[in-house]
Amino acid sequence: MRISQLSAVSGVPIPTIKYYLREGLLPAGEQTSATRAEYGERHVRRLRLIRALLEVGHLPIAAIRKVVAAVEDESMGMHRVLGTAHYAISPPVESHPDDEEWRRARAEADGLIADLGWQVDAAAPARDELAQAVLTLDRLGLPATGDALRPYAETAMRLVAEHEIRTIPLDRTREEAVEALVVGTVVHGRVLDVMRRLAQESASARIFGISEARHD
Amino acid sequence: MRISQLSAVSGVPIPTIKYYLREGLLPAGEQTSATRAEYGERHVRRLRLIRALLEVGHLPIAAIRKVVAAVEDESMGMHRVLGTAHYAISPPVESHPDDEEWRRARAEADGLIADLGWQVDAAAPARDELAQAVLTLDRLGLPATGDALRPYAETAMRLVAEHEIRTIPLDRTREEAVEALVVGTVVHGRVLDVMRRLAQESASARIFGISEARHD
Repeated sequence: MRISQLSAVSGVPIPTIKYYLREGLLPAGEQTSATRAEYGERHVRRLRLIRALLEVGHLPIAAIRKVVAAVEDESMGMHRVLGTAHYAISPPVESHPDDEEWRRARAEADGLIADLGWQVDAAAPARDELAQAVLTLDRLGLPATGDALRPYAETAMRLVAEHEIRTIPLDRTREEAVEALVVGTVVHGRVLDVMRRLAQESASARIFGISEARHD
Repeated sequence: MRISQLSAVSGVPIPTIKYYLREGLLPAGEQTSATRAEYGERHVRRLRLIRALLEVGHLPIAAIRKVVAAVEDESMGMHRVLGTAHYAISPPVESHPDDEEWRRARAEADGLIADLGWQVDAAAPARDELAQAVLTLDRLGLPATGDALRPYAETAMRLVAEHEIRTIPLDRTREEAVEALVVGTVVHGRVLDVMRRLAQESASARIFGISEARHD
């Protein structure tokens, strides 16, 4: 199909498609003449992936470029693709290895991961993200030990082990499986976050709701 | 204490403190002369809250202003403060009520919340966030029904009901309880998200790790 059809099928405007082509997010079409290129199903799927990472993941273009490069690199196994996606979606955290407070927070985070027996790369940026949260809780005088955070770890691992592991589509092509893995990480992460806020609102309505209505 | 001491105690530079004062994030100090104002423990705590919402929550200043206003409004009950915090931390989602596809996604989200028996405001922005996720999954050909998302809902509610509910510090002052509630929502949301990625990495290392090493 031509670029105009690709735009119609995907709902992505032609200038945006051209921008993605320039930025290397979308592979070039097959050049059929000097001024024409043909696009296919693969381009439609890639546009959906980009849109998902943008609209639901709120990822910057640079992060999407890294994810797309991992999807395209067929020599990259599933574990490394997932790692690339994880690293790309991690919000930037300033590490402060010279600061005593920071080192304690990071040690608390590393200690919890070790206690849980989890296999996590020593350079995973999620370790710094966890340290940042520990530091923030500690500064606010809220429980910030590994033990205080353990319920979140156990909740997450139960979800992964009992549910998410089963949803990896190992029966599809590598590209489809990888896309599902990446999108699942991003979109289902948003789903879990939204569900937690909805569950909190519902629990709060039950606990505080009625007594508050009296003051209205 | 004077502004210089407030800066030393909180670790927030004086120009930043002045910016927060101008933006209404920090209440004015007590004016002791034409050029001097006194700050207290309350300002130290507020600066910690702002820093937590900025550094871990990645909230824009406008969102922090809304949260701070809710913390300061003593007539506002806990349920409404939590609601205000939830609304402030929701990423902006474009609602498309005229679009048939959007309406179906939103109906799927609303249907799941109703099936779960959750008490959620009809105007809660989290409903649109959930609809956006449903729409994205559906477009990518991934499972997008309420049933497919139910494991996330059940995981979230178990965490809230079995753990988070107990951590609301109802024995402290209203301001402290409200701050803990707001910070907990934001920071523990990040903790859960990080833990899920760490758990995924660990599970992925176990599943894919060894076979991938062979190809290296």
